[in-house]
Amino acid sequence: MGRTSDAKERLIQAAMALIHARSYADVGVQELCEHAGVKKGSFYHFFNTKQDLVLAALDQWWAFARERNWNDAFSPTRPPLERIERFFEINYEQNVAEFELAGQFSGCPFGNLSIEMCCQDDAIREKIHAIFDDVVGRLKQTLDDAVANKILAPMDTQETALALWAYCEGVLMLAKARQDLDLLRRLGKRAVRFLQGSGRKAA
Amino acid sequence: MGRTSDAKERLIQAAMALIHARSYADVGVQELCEHAGVKKGSFYHFFNTKQDLVLAALDQWWAFARERNWNDAFSPTRPPLERIERFFEINYEQNVAEFELAGQFSGCPFGNLSIEMCCQDDAIREKIHAIFDDVVGRLKQTLDDAVANKILAPMDTQETALALWAYCEGVLMLAKARQDLDLLRRLGKRAVRFLQGSGRKAA
Repeated sequence: MGRTSDAKERLIQAAMALIHARSYADVGVQELCEHAGVKKGSFYHFFNTKQDLVLAALDQWWAFARERNWNDAFSPTRPPLERIERFFEINYEQNVAEFELAGQFSGCPFGNLSIEMCCQDDAIREKIHAIFDDVVGRLKQTLDDAVANKILAPMDTQETALALWAYCEGVLMLAKARQDLDLLRRLGKRAVRFLQGSGRKAA
Repeated sequence: MGRTSDAKERLIQAAMALIHARSYADVGVQELCEHAGVKKGSFYHFFNTKQDLVLAALDQWWAFARERNWNDAFSPTRPPLERIERFFEINYEQNVAEFELAGQFSGCPFGNLSIEMCCQDDAIREKIHAIFDDVVGRLKQTLDDAVANKILAPMDTQETALALWAYCEGVLMLAKARQDLDLLRRLGKRAVRFLQGSGRKAA
């Protein structure tokens, strides 16, 4: 058993590894404790339930996404369409890195948990809702900047941001289904092209 | 307990109801038997494992999708872009009907099982792969027809069909995450608009 002082962090890491590789329902508290090298009593010192642990894991994934992906991709120093290109590129690069570590392409932790849990667990659904709102808001701001700079035709930027995020999650799902990282790269590159048709003129 | 003669069909229906509403891992053989009103011995008369049952359920969903959605939407009597519009419309209509029956918006059975199982079960992954290839092939044929009729600019129709299917699955995921059927309707209507940017000229 490892040190108690980092037991909480090791439990979160265990959830991020095992639940991401398989599913929420397939991984129990006992297995999480064994993987983390933590006694069951310690688990219940830090978390009331597996749900509590997964909410903490979602917070950690969200912080990671913000710090390692979104803050870089959506930096206002980039021209707007380059932000969207970079967002999809980083998404690809991170999945390649995770594949090299874990030996499988597990896809988006938010999308995976949303599909599995959003009809079964209000707290998990609300947390993922907030995460999705965060990224959709960044995409909307980017589209607003592109329209203001006449790079894109006027459009409903909120709806288009939702459509772009749906596309991103769908590409992750399809590429995961085929375990095909190159498909993730190729379809990610088409995102900006799709936008060319989103202006009012094409409505 | 119901009649043995339709026990197999009732087990498949139980899988389609319970696993679609929750997940593969969360629903066990015992619960499937209880829901179907079938003894456990009967289950093992028809299926070796829960995996076998789910493969049969996937075949039934696939047949339903072909007969109630794809054969109608992709009828060559429709102009090409109308086929794609109708494909997304039927997708919305069926999810509304399922919501009214089940009281929740469970999304796409193929996408849900793909996300949960494609890294854990080769047979389920291969089956979903074949289903995805079927629908992507129909989308590609539609795009080929649209390009041949100069309705869309020349494009890589295979890649664009993959992108359209990814978009469809992503829209289902996002709308399911929000339990928002109107979002499914609205984002589905944008699919054809996205295509306007997919031609070679915009590359």
